[in-house]
Amino acid sequence: MPQHRIENVSSGFWLFIESRGYRVLQYCVLAAGLVAMSAATVPDVRPELRAWLTVGLWCCLGFFTFELAVRVWTRSVSERGPRYLLAAAGAIDAMAVLPIPIALLVGVPAETAWLLASLWLLKLTTSVPGLALLGRVISLESRSLASVFAIFLIVLLLAAVALYVLERAAQPEQFGSLPLSLWWSVTTLTTTGYGDAVPESFLGRVIAGMVMICGLGVFGLLTGILATGFAAEHRRRDFIRTWDLVTRVPFFRDLYPAAIVELTRMLRRLDVAERTVVVRRGRPGDCMYFIASGEVEVKLEPRPVRLGPGSFFGEMALLERGPRTATVVTTAPTTLLILDVSDFHAFTALHPDLAQTVETEAKRRASDSKRKVSKEQ
Amino acid sequence: MPQHRIENVSSGFWLFIESRGYRVLQYCVLAAGLVAMSAATVPDVRPELRAWLTVGLWCCLGFFTFELAVRVWTRSVSERGPRYLLAAAGAIDAMAVLPIPIALLVGVPAETAWLLASLWLLKLTTSVPGLALLGRVISLESRSLASVFAIFLIVLLLAAVALYVLERAAQPEQFGSLPLSLWWSVTTLTTTGYGDAVPESFLGRVIAGMVMICGLGVFGLLTGILATGFAAEHRRRDFIRTWDLVTRVPFFRDLYPAAIVELTRMLRRLDVAERTVVVRRGRPGDCMYFIASGEVEVKLEPRPVRLGPGSFFGEMALLERGPRTATVVTTAPTTLLILDVSDFHAFTALHPDLAQTVETEAKRRASDSKRKVSKEQ
Amino acid sequence: MPQHRIENVSSGFWLFIESRGYRVLQYCVLAAGLVAMSAATVPDVRPELRAWLTVGLWCCLGFFTFELAVRVWTRSVSERGPRYLLAAAGAIDAMAVLPIPIALLVGVPAETAWLLASLWLLKLTTSVPGLALLGRVISLESRSLASVFAIFLIVLLLAAVALYVLERAAQPEQFGSLPLSLWWSVTTLTTTGYGDAVPESFLGRVIAGMVMICGLGVFGLLTGILATGFAAEHRRRDFIRTWDLVTRVPFFRDLYPAAIVELTRMLRRLDVAERTVVVRRGRPGDCMYFIASGEVEVKLEPRPVRLGPGSFFGEMALLERGPRTATVVTTAPTTLLILDVSDFHAFTALHPDLAQTVETEAKRRASDSKRKVSKEQ
Amino acid sequence: MPQHRIENVSSGFWLFIESRGYRVLQYCVLAAGLVAMSAATVPDVRPELRAWLTVGLWCCLGFFTFELAVRVWTRSVSERGPRYLLAAAGAIDAMAVLPIPIALLVGVPAETAWLLASLWLLKLTTSVPGLALLGRVISLESRSLASVFAIFLIVLLLAAVALYVLERAAQPEQFGSLPLSLWWSVTTLTTTGYGDAVPESFLGRVIAGMVMICGLGVFGLLTGILATGFAAEHRRRDFIRTWDLVTRVPFFRDLYPAAIVELTRMLRRLDVAERTVVVRRGRPGDCMYFIASGEVEVKLEPRPVRLGPGSFFGEMALLERGPRTATVVTTAPTTLLILDVSDFHAFTALHPDLAQTVETEAKRRASDSKRKVSKEQ
Repeated sequence: MPQHRIENVSSGFWLFIESRGYRVLQYCVLAAGLVAMSAATVPDVRPELRAWLTVGLWCCLGFFTFELAVRVWTRSVSERGPRYLLAAAGAIDAMAVLPIPIALLVGVPAETAWLLASLWLLKLTTSVPGLALLGRVISLESRSLASVFAIFLIVLLLAAVALYVLERAAQPEQFGSLPLSLWWSVTTLTTTGYGDAVPESFLGRVIAGMVMICGLGVFGLLTGILATGFAAEHRRRDFIRTWDLVTRVPFFRDLYPAAIVELTRMLRRLDVAERTVVVRRGRPGDCMYFIASGEVEVKLEPRPVRLGPGSFFGEMALLERGPRTATVVTTAPTTLLILDVSDFHAFTALHPDLAQTVETEAKRRASDSKRKVSKEQ
Repeated sequence: MPQHRIENVSSGFWLFIESRGYRVLQYCVLAAGLVAMSAATVPDVRPELRAWLTVGLWCCLGFFTFELAVRVWTRSVSERGPRYLLAAAGAIDAMAVLPIPIALLVGVPAETAWLLASLWLLKLTTSVPGLALLGRVISLESRSLASVFAIFLIVLLLAAVALYVLERAAQPEQFGSLPLSLWWSVTTLTTTGYGDAVPESFLGRVIAGMVMICGLGVFGLLTGILATGFAAEHRRRDFIRTWDLVTRVPFFRDLYPAAIVELTRMLRRLDVAERTVVVRRGRPGDCMYFIASGEVEVKLEPRPVRLGPGSFFGEMALLERGPRTATVVTTAPTTLLILDVSDFHAFTALHPDLAQTVETEAKRRASDSKRKVSKEQ
Repeated sequence: MPQHRIENVSSGFWLFIESRGYRVLQYCVLAAGLVAMSAATVPDVRPELRAWLTVGLWCCLGFFTFELAVRVWTRSVSERGPRYLLAAAGAIDAMAVLPIPIALLVGVPAETAWLLASLWLLKLTTSVPGLALLGRVISLESRSLASVFAIFLIVLLLAAVALYVLERAAQPEQFGSLPLSLWWSVTTLTTTGYGDAVPESFLGRVIAGMVMICGLGVFGLLTGILATGFAAEHRRRDFIRTWDLVTRVPFFRDLYPAAIVELTRMLRRLDVAERTVVVRRGRPGDCMYFIASGEVEVKLEPRPVRLGPGSFFGEMALLERGPRTATVVTTAPTTLLILDVSDFHAFTALHPDLAQTVETEAKRRASDSKRKVSKEQ
Repeated sequence: MPQHRIENVSSGFWLFIESRGYRVLQYCVLAAGLVAMSAATVPDVRPELRAWLTVGLWCCLGFFTFELAVRVWTRSVSERGPRYLLAAAGAIDAMAVLPIPIALLVGVPAETAWLLASLWLLKLTTSVPGLALLGRVISLESRSLASVFAIFLIVLLLAAVALYVLERAAQPEQFGSLPLSLWWSVTTLTTTGYGDAVPESFLGRVIAGMVMICGLGVFGLLTGILATGFAAEHRRRDFIRTWDLVTRVPFFRDLYPAAIVELTRMLRRLDVAERTVVVRRGRPGDCMYFIASGEVEVKLEPRPVRLGPGSFFGEMALLERGPRTATVVTTAPTTLLILDVSDFHAFTALHPDLAQTVETEAKRRASDSKRKVSKEQ
C-alpha cells in the first residue's frame, strides 16, 4: 500500500476517533462496562447472567484495546507515535487495557482481576476539560490549601488525644487506642458522623461539639479557597477562547485594541447544537448575539434569512427595547458570542462608533425586509 | 353572547388568575392538598378523618382543574390557546390535573394514585422567579459542573473498589458486592454518613478518611461554581429590571448614557408593600430613595406630603449627614430605587449636575415646608 | 428631688448601662444563668446543688429585671419612654423578665417555667451588630432564597414519595407513611444522615444517592446567595462608618470629593484596645496608619512621641520600603484607619499631592528627631 | 574559641536549621514521631515493637531538643537570645520539648506522658505561611463571625429546649436533661448527625428538620465570611510580595508608578523547582514570563540560551498568537512572574511603550537566532 494511502486511511480513523459521535459511543461503552463489572461482584447473580456479564466485559476491553491500537497507529503514521504512550493520555489508555490481561496471566482470580476495570473511568480525565484547570488551581493555591490542611491536622490530632484520654476507660471498643480515636475524630471533623463511636462523658461531648464547629470552619475555608481559585482560572481560560473568536468577527476589526479587550471581557461564549431555538419571537430581549462559527436562520416574513459567521442578530430588541421581532434557529452547530443589554449600553456609551454601525445595519435590514415584502406582493 | 363580551369576561378571569391574591390562594390550596396527601398515608388515621382527607384532596384537584380550564379558555380566546398546553407552564398545569383521574380509572389503588398529587408542587416552578435563572446558570456552567461530577465519579468508584477488596471478607453484609460498596461510598463522599456500613480494617478507615476529605473538596468546588454563576446571572437580570425603572424616572433623563449605565449599576431595587414604613424619623440615614412606581407619604409638619413616581426622598440625611428628618410611609405597593450614601458621593463627585439638582430640590422643599408652617400659623 | 437632679442620676445610670464594662457583666450573667438553667434539668443533681441553682436563677432574673427597670426609667425621663417597650429591644428585655413569673403564677411546674430563661439569649440580638445586617440581606435576597427553598421542597417531596412507594412494604417502621418518609428525606437532603431510616432496595438507594448530591447542590446555592449578600451589605455598612472617620482626619480635608470616596474604599478600620503594640520595630512594613480617635505612643529615641487623632504613622516603611523604624503602642482605646502598601502606591500615583504631604511630614519628623537627639547630647 | 569563630559556627548552624532540606527532615521526624505515638497506644502491640516505638519517640524528642538548643544558642550569639523563648515560635519549640520529661519526672504514667507529643504538631503553625493570615482574617471579620456565632447559639439553645420539652418523657435516655438535648442539638445543627439521639414525636421531627435547614444557613454564612476575608487578605499579601519582585526586574523600571501598580495587580507569582519544564514547544501559548530570580534555559536550535533575573520569555506566542516556539526549562530554583494574554493585551493597549520594547526584543532575538544558525553552518 503506498504511503499516501496509508496516511489517508490513518487520518480517516483519526477523524473518526476524535469525533463527537465516537465520544458518545465511548461513554456508553464505559458506562456499560462499569455496570457489568459492578453486577459481576454481586454474589447471588445467576450463572448464565454472570457468563453474559463476562462476555460484555471482554467486549468492552476489546473496544478499548482497539481504541488504543488506532491511537498508537495513527500517531505513529503522523510521526508522533513514540511520544503518545509516554504522554498522560496514552498512559491512561494503556492502563485501561493492559492490567487486566496481565493480572489474569499472573494468576489473580478473575473476579478480582476485573475490578481493575475501574481504571477505565480515568479516561474521563482526558475528555473532561475542567480537570486540567483544577490541577492549575491546586498548584496556584497550594499555600493556602496547605495551611488549611495544617489546621485540619492539628484539630484532628488534639481532639483525638483529648477523646482518647477522656473515653478510653469507658469505651475501650471505640476509643481504646489513638488510631481508633483518630477515626472518630476524622468522621466528626468532616461532619460525616457515622455514629459508630460517640463520646459519652460530659467533657468529651463539649470537645466533640467544638470539633464539629471547627469542621464547619475548616470546610468554609476550603470552599472559599477552591471556589475563588476555580472562578479566577475559569475566567482566564474563557478570556483566551473568547478572544480567539472575537478576532474572527470582521465587525470588531476596526475597534481599538483596548476596546477589543474590554469587549472580550463582556462577551460570553455559548455553544449551541443544530436546530435549536436561540431567540423566540415575542420574548423580552436582553442580549444580542454575534456568530463566531456556524449558521442561523432568522424566521422573517415572507422568507427566512440565513446568517453566517461574523454576522450579528438580536440587536433590534436592544435598540428599541421591545420584544424579539423574529425567531432565530440554528441550522448547524453554532458558537455564539452573547452581549448583554447592560454591557451593550455601557460599551456603546464609551464607543459610539459601534452603536452607529449596529444601528446602520439594523436600519438597512429593516428597509431590506420591507423591500422584499413589496417585491413578493 | 357577542364576541367582545366573551373577551371581556375572559380578560376578567385572566386578571383574577394572574393577581397576587389568587397566587396566595393557590399556595394555600397547594399546602393544604399536600398536607392532606401526607396525612392520608398514615396507617392509623381514623376512617372518618380519612374520608374528610379524601374530600379535601378532591376539592384541591377541582381547584386545579378549574385553574387549568380558565387558563386554556382565556388563552384560546386571545388566540394563544393551542400553544399553552405545549408550553412548560401548561404542561405542568395539565400534569397536576390529569394523572390522578387516569390512574384511578386504570385501576391503580386510591392510596397510590393520590401520591401523584406530589406533582402539584411542580406548580412552584412557574411562579418562583429564580428557577429559570438556575437553569441558565447550569447551562452556562455545564463544563465546570461536568468536571466536578467526573471527579466525584472517579473518587466514588475507586473508593468503592478499594473498600470492596478490603472489607468483603470481614463484612459481607455491608461490603459483599460492588453495589453495596458504592452505597457506602456515596453516603461517605457526600458526608451524609448513615453509619449502616462502616469500614473496620485499618487501611479501609484510612481510605474512608481520605474519601471524606475529598467530599469536602468536591463540595467546595460545587458550591463555588454554582454560587459564582448564580450571583452573576442574578446581577445581569437585576440590571435589566433596574434599567427599565431608571428610564421611567424623569429626574435621570438629562444624564449622559454612560452615567445612566453607571447609576443603574449602583441602584438597588426594593418592592415595598402598602402601609410600610420606609424611613423612620431619627434613624441614621445611609441611602436616598427614588420612586419608580407607587406612592409614599412623607409625615411632615404641619401636614403630610404625598410623592408619586419619579420623585425622590431621603436626600437631606445624605446632604447634611444627620438623622432622618421625617418618617416616610408607602400608601400603595411601591417600587423604590435605593442609592447608598457611598454610591451617592462617588456618583456626584463625577457628575456634579445631579448633586446640584438634588440640593436645589432639597432647598426648595425646606423653604416650602417653612412657608407652609408660617401659612398655618 | 428637683427635675435636673433626676435627669443627672438618670443619665448616669444610662451611661453605666450602655458602657462596655456593663456589657461584659451582662454576658457573664447571661452565661451563668443559662448554665444554671441547663444544670437544673439534670435528674441526678443533688438537692442542695439544685437549691443553689434556683437561687442563682432568681439572681439572674433580678439582674435582668433591674436592667429593664433602669432602661424604662431612663428612657421615660428623656421622654422616649412609651416607645421603648414597643421597640424590638424593649420587647426582648421584657420577654426576658416577665414570662417566668407569669408562668410560675399560672401554675406551670418550676422546672418547666425556668426553661423560659432560654429567652434571655435573645438579648444577644440587640448587642451583636451583624444581626440587623443579616435581616437586610435576607430581605434583599428573598427572591433567590425563595427559589432555592422551592427546589429544596420539590426534591424533598418527590424523594419522599419515591422512597415511600419503594420501601413501605419492606420497612413499615421507617417508611410506612409519607410523614415518616419525609423525615428520612429531610435528614438525607441536609446530609445530616442519622441512619435511623436507611433505604434497602436497590432503586431506593440509587434515589437516595441522587438526593444526597442534590443536597450538596442546594447547599451550594444557599451558601453562595447568603455569602454574596452578606459580603455586599457588610461592605456598604463599613463604607459609611469609615467615611465618618475619614471626615474627622484633617489631613484628608484638602482632597477632592472623588478622591475621598476612593480613599474611603481603600481604608480598613481597626479598633485597638489600650496598651496594644500596633507596629513592632524591625518587622516588615506593609501599611500605614491614620488615627481616627484615641492616642498612640511612638517609642522613639531619646524620648517617645505621642500622636493624637488626625495624625498618621508607619509611613517611613512605605516610602523607603524597609522594616519599621520604631515600635508604636496605643495609650488609649484607639480607632485606626489602615492604608495598605498596594493601595498607598495606587492612590499616590493618581494623587501626587498626598504623597508629597506624607513625604514632607516624614522629612520634618526625621529632622525633628535628629534635632532632639542633638539637643539631648 | 575566638568570638568570630563562634559566630561563624553559629551562623552555619543557623543556615542549616533554616534550610529547605532541614524542614523536610523536620516534617519526616514529626510524622514518624506522631505515628509512633499513635501506635504505642494500641493495646495489642507486641512488647518488642512497643520497646522500639519508645526508642523512636525518645529519638524524636532528642531531635527537637537539639533543634531548640541550636535555635536558643544561635539567637543568643546574634544577641537576640532572651527574646526567642518569649516569642511564639520559641514557646512552641519549648512546649514540644519540656512537657514530656516534666510529666515523666512528676510521675505521670509513660503512656499518658507521651500523648503530650501531640504538641509537636504545633510546630506546623510556625512553618505554614497561611496561619498568620488566618489570624488576621479572624480578627478583621470578628464582628461578622460573632453575629453568626450568636445565631448559632440562639438556634442551638431554643432547639434544645423545644426537644427537651417534647421528648423527655418518651426518651429519657436521650433527651432527659437539657445538656443531653444540647448534645443532640449540636450534632444536628452542624449536620453531623450521629444518630444516637433521634426525635420520635411528630413536632420534634418538624423542629429537627428546621434545625437542619438552619444548620445549612449558618454554615453558608460562616463559609462566605471566612472565604471572602481569606481571599482579600491573600490578595493583599501577594501584592506586597509581587511588588518586591517587580521592582527587581530592570525591564519595568521606566514605567510610571501608576502603571507599575496596575502591572503588579496583573502578575501572578510562581515558584518553580530546578529542572522543571515551564513552557513546552508546540503547546498553545497563553501567557509570558518574567524571571524575578533564578535561571532558565531556552532550548533553541542550534544551541540553548540561558536567561537570568530580569529577562522575559514566552512573548512570541503572545505577539504572533501561535504555539510555543521553544521549550524552556529551569536550571535553578526560579521565581517567575506570569502575565496572562488577556492582561498583556489590556496593559499594552494602555501602555504602548511596553509593547514596543517587548516587540523590539523579540525581533532582536529572532535575528540573533538566525545569525547564530548561519554562523554554525
